[in-house]
Amino acid sequence: MSVTAAKGFTAAGIAAGIKENGNPDLALVVNNGPRRAAAGVFTSNRVKAAPVLWSEQVLKSGQVAAVVLNSGGANACTGPKGFQDTHATAEKAAEVLGTGAGEIAVCSTGLIGVTLPMDKLLPGVETAAGRLSEHGGEKAALAIKTTDSVHKTAVRTSETGGWTVGGMAKGAGMLAPGLATMLVVLTTDADVEAEALDRALRAATRVTFDRVDSDGCMSTNDTVLLLASGATGVTPAYEEFAEAVRAVCDDLGQQLIRDAEGASKDIKVEVVGAATEDDAVEVGRSIARNNLLKCAIHGEDPNWGRVLSAIGTTKAVFEPDALDVAINGVWVCKNGGVGEDRDKVDMRYREVHIVADLGAGDATATIWTNDLTADYVHENSAYSS
Amino acid sequence: MSVTAAKGFTAAGIAAGIKENGNPDLALVVNNGPRRAAAGVFTSNRVKAAPVLWSEQVLKSGQVAAVVLNSGGANACTGPKGFQDTHATAEKAAEVLGTGAGEIAVCSTGLIGVTLPMDKLLPGVETAAGRLSEHGGEKAALAIKTTDSVHKTAVRTSETGGWTVGGMAKGAGMLAPGLATMLVVLTTDADVEAEALDRALRAATRVTFDRVDSDGCMSTNDTVLLLASGATGVTPAYEEFAEAVRAVCDDLGQQLIRDAEGASKDIKVEVVGAATEDDAVEVGRSIARNNLLKCAIHGEDPNWGRVLSAIGTTKAVFEPDALDVAINGVWVCKNGGVGEDRDKVDMRYREVHIVADLGAGDATATIWTNDLTADYVHENSAYSS
Repeated sequence: MSVTAAKGFTAAGIAAGIKENGNPDLALVVNNGPRRAAAGVFTSNRVKAAPVLWSEQVLKSGQVAAVVLNSGGANACTGPKGFQDTHATAEKAAEVLGTGAGEIAVCSTGLIGVTLPMDKLLPGVETAAGRLSEHGGEKAALAIKTTDSVHKTAVRTSETGGWTVGGMAKGAGMLAPGLATMLVVLTTDADVEAEALDRALRAATRVTFDRVDSDGCMSTNDTVLLLASGATGVTPAYEEFAEAVRAVCDDLGQQLIRDAEGASKDIKVEVVGAATEDDAVEVGRSIARNNLLKCAIHGEDPNWGRVLSAIGTTKAVFEPDALDVAINGVWVCKNGGVGEDRDKVDMRYREVHIVADLGAGDATATIWTNDLTADYVHENSAYSS
Repeated sequence: MSVTAAKGFTAAGIAAGIKENGNPDLALVVNNGPRRAAAGVFTSNRVKAAPVLWSEQVLKSGQVAAVVLNSGGANACTGPKGFQDTHATAEKAAEVLGTGAGEIAVCSTGLIGVTLPMDKLLPGVETAAGRLSEHGGEKAALAIKTTDSVHKTAVRTSETGGWTVGGMAKGAGMLAPGLATMLVVLTTDADVEAEALDRALRAATRVTFDRVDSDGCMSTNDTVLLLASGATGVTPAYEEFAEAVRAVCDDLGQQLIRDAEGASKDIKVEVVGAATEDDAVEVGRSIARNNLLKCAIHGEDPNWGRVLSAIGTTKAVFEPDALDVAINGVWVCKNGGVGEDRDKVDMRYREVHIVADLGAGDATATIWTNDLTADYVHENSAYSS
């Protein structure tokens, strides 16, 4: 499944020795055509890793033949040497695949500020190329894990058109919009031009990965790629195709949140009654990033005062005495003050649903986040990552 | 000392029974003149507690006769009833002190969304008025504590002018600019007009309390008041007076950071080489609010990649390959890449000093924050606060 669910793609995942513990750390995804259309969305962090700078250039042509991905090192903040390393990686893949380096996208993930062991990585590209398979999607998904406890894949197939959108993702921390710290490769065997791929991908990430915010920290390496082989020969209606891309992105985004570092609760922050969607997103993010609220949720405390104090820091349209807040279906805050009995709120389960009604319009947005736990602190303080 | 270090002030702190555990919870600070000039700075959170809404009105006259402060309840998000309670508190203080309610400022701190026990609070105001003393400053400082482990006071006296600026503060969590979750009352026996008090107070809070950011969470109740009795009859030069106010605010701000909930490290984030002071502040805040970095510092890990990824989320003027970062004096990042050996960084001590050089100009700013610890999570999840 994963990136090889769609026809026309092969993939491999191997242990190249980049990770010192011997775990899989190198993935290769190849588009065997007949088409090689592609689109990409990258981190909006201004400190961009070398592979992001490289792949942004590659994607400008709207053509990608293959993607090389490594875990075990982000190749970020590594200066000119880091960019040369990414370039050499693309050259090596182009050489073994018989194409041009300008059609090879590169993604890296791991610790920032460490150069990659190229003596391991370049032979690894050759080994991976020798193991490419139409069933290699799972292995590729395993090879891009960092602190992920499970690998993440998702697939949607059109019942009428016979085409498929599939993909893989990694990410478990430093998850914040624009994008979450994630590498995602999506593939499709539908026959779609690069321009439509780009439109569908941007529309999908805007309402999925961009609304996953585990810890408010934005990465230097985020990359989401969508590759189309055209192997089915079917060109779907744009809306149906875009919806399939959105569904796969949504599925993968949910998997990222459920695997977030140290989390014990998945929190759905739904903002309704906003004057604009931008207002709804701003308020949702502010609530989702409030450490005090995230601690309260961890303690199963329906502390709605912390929701209101988070809303109050935004520029959204609202009147403080018109704010309503529900936690798990109980409207604990009405008209900016005390509402239903907070003892009625049942918070025993992993999923927590917060609704904030701004009473200012009809726009809505949903942001997904997690609670803040001692385990998160431990995972991010006990060793470098 | 505290608010009674300056001549012309009396204060009291008592246990009125607002807190169920019987700890001190009500403070009264009275300006006995001959002047009653005053200035105030309040939270920029748009969800403001009733006492903030009340005191903002009081301060418009530039005159304050007394301040009533309670811990054990924030009186925030309590609707019209909450505002009536604040009004009744001011009326009671005015009655027992023989002045008008329009000259009584009110401050509250504690849990949001709970109305105050007025049957305890109003008799408490009367009791406190009966215990007013020129030596009551310490007791007042003790009565405004919430999760504070210690009470905070500071005093500066002019060697040449003989006048004093003193004050008290509370705050240990929900510390973020605009302002930190704090109540602060400053007093002076210098003879200063309300306008100059306001100017000096705003200048001081901008570079002290507004740059203390323990957890990025902004409160609904923040209040900083400065009261002048004129009891020395001395009108100092503005610059000397403003500097004394700044020094007292800086001292109290440092005490807040050192007592932040669950913290094991105090982190000084110094941004230099910025194009503007606003840029320096934006970058400093972004670094200070990065949960991943705060966890790394807790683990004594000089993870400068997390500093760069935080800088990259800002709109400040900089080039990624011109960024330098020092941690405890070691330039671990040079020109956006690997710098000196990170093993040279000694992080055993409580104070951690991060310098980020943007290489874009001469402006600087310093933001103070703390590490993120399991103890912070525990303090903010184990019970409502």
